[in-house]
Amino acid sequence: MWLTSILDKVEGCVVLSKRVRGFSRERELARILYKHGFAVLRAPASGAKTRRLVYPDIVAIKNGVVLVFEVKTREKPSTIYIDKRQFMKLQDFIYRSGGHGFIAVKIMDGRGWRFVPVELVEETRGGNYRVSMEAIEKGYTLRDLVKLCDKTRSLTEWLEK
Amino acid sequence: MWLTSILDKVEGCVVLSKRVRGFSRERELARILYKHGFAVLRAPASGAKTRRLVYPDIVAIKNGVVLVFEVKTREKPSTIYIDKRQFMKLQDFIYRSGGHGFIAVKIMDGRGWRFVPVELVEETRGGNYRVSMEAIEKGYTLRDLVKLCDKTRSLTEWLEK
Repeated sequence: MWLTSILDKVEGCVVLSKRVRGFSRERELARILYKHGFAVLRAPASGAKTRRLVYPDIVAIKNGVVLVFEVKTREKPSTIYIDKRQFMKLQDFIYRSGGHGFIAVKIMDGRGWRFVPVELVEETRGGNYRVSMEAIEKGYTLRDLVKLCDKTRSLTEWLEK
Repeated sequence: MWLTSILDKVEGCVVLSKRVRGFSRERELARILYKHGFAVLRAPASGAKTRRLVYPDIVAIKNGVVLVFEVKTREKPSTIYIDKRQFMKLQDFIYRSGGHGFIAVKIMDGRGWRFVPVELVEETRGGNYRVSMEAIEKGYTLRDLVKLCDKTRSLTEWLEK
């Protein structure tokens, strides 16, 4: 946190600042999910961007329920564009794992986290992908997400009895 | 592979060689699981040893079935000792995820992979953990492991219908 604040005040550090903030948000979400009883895996922060394309930002597992996240940060709700290759990798991971995929957006104006299911991600004309401002505003809150997981878990437990 | 071979021939590189070989085995197992349709996550290879303690070596997920692995390499079957803190972290991850945990041992004398369920790991008098030579020899083969997963998956699918 303090590192982010200092970097924000230094001109010329905007890019690094954004990157640090990105990792910081991933860590924040990872901690929240861990506190809610999930086993949590974060993609390696080190290495080149190409290496990061291989893994989703966060994978959280609890009792067979698998949540897969790409994490984004925005000052206020605005359209988010996602690189085609990155989105394809994410979809492949979701398909293989049988998990639920979300674009996790931390909105910095005080609104906090919004989770947009990947099913609501739209393809652009150029073949890339985008999450609309409306989808972000209507996205699940953290509370919704936790409820959803507990519901899914109960259903799985009930079925396994 | 070639790097491992070269390093094996250079005296004084034994430790590095073992480390490279370890990562190489993890990559091998990750590839096998990927080919069998799993979503696969490997622990970050970079960073200090302490950082590696946080994550299992490999986590593989398919349709809600979660497999968690610590990977070891041995020239031939022999008792394997596991650090207490590392084993506790592994157990915590297995418990949270609801997954199945294995010590994956690649035996280099031609026998290939053996998978010992964590339930067969014994506590030593000193409070650390060990996998006996017998447990390794009787461990699941790769074929057993794949069968086990397909069986678990069919059961889950059947229950969900």
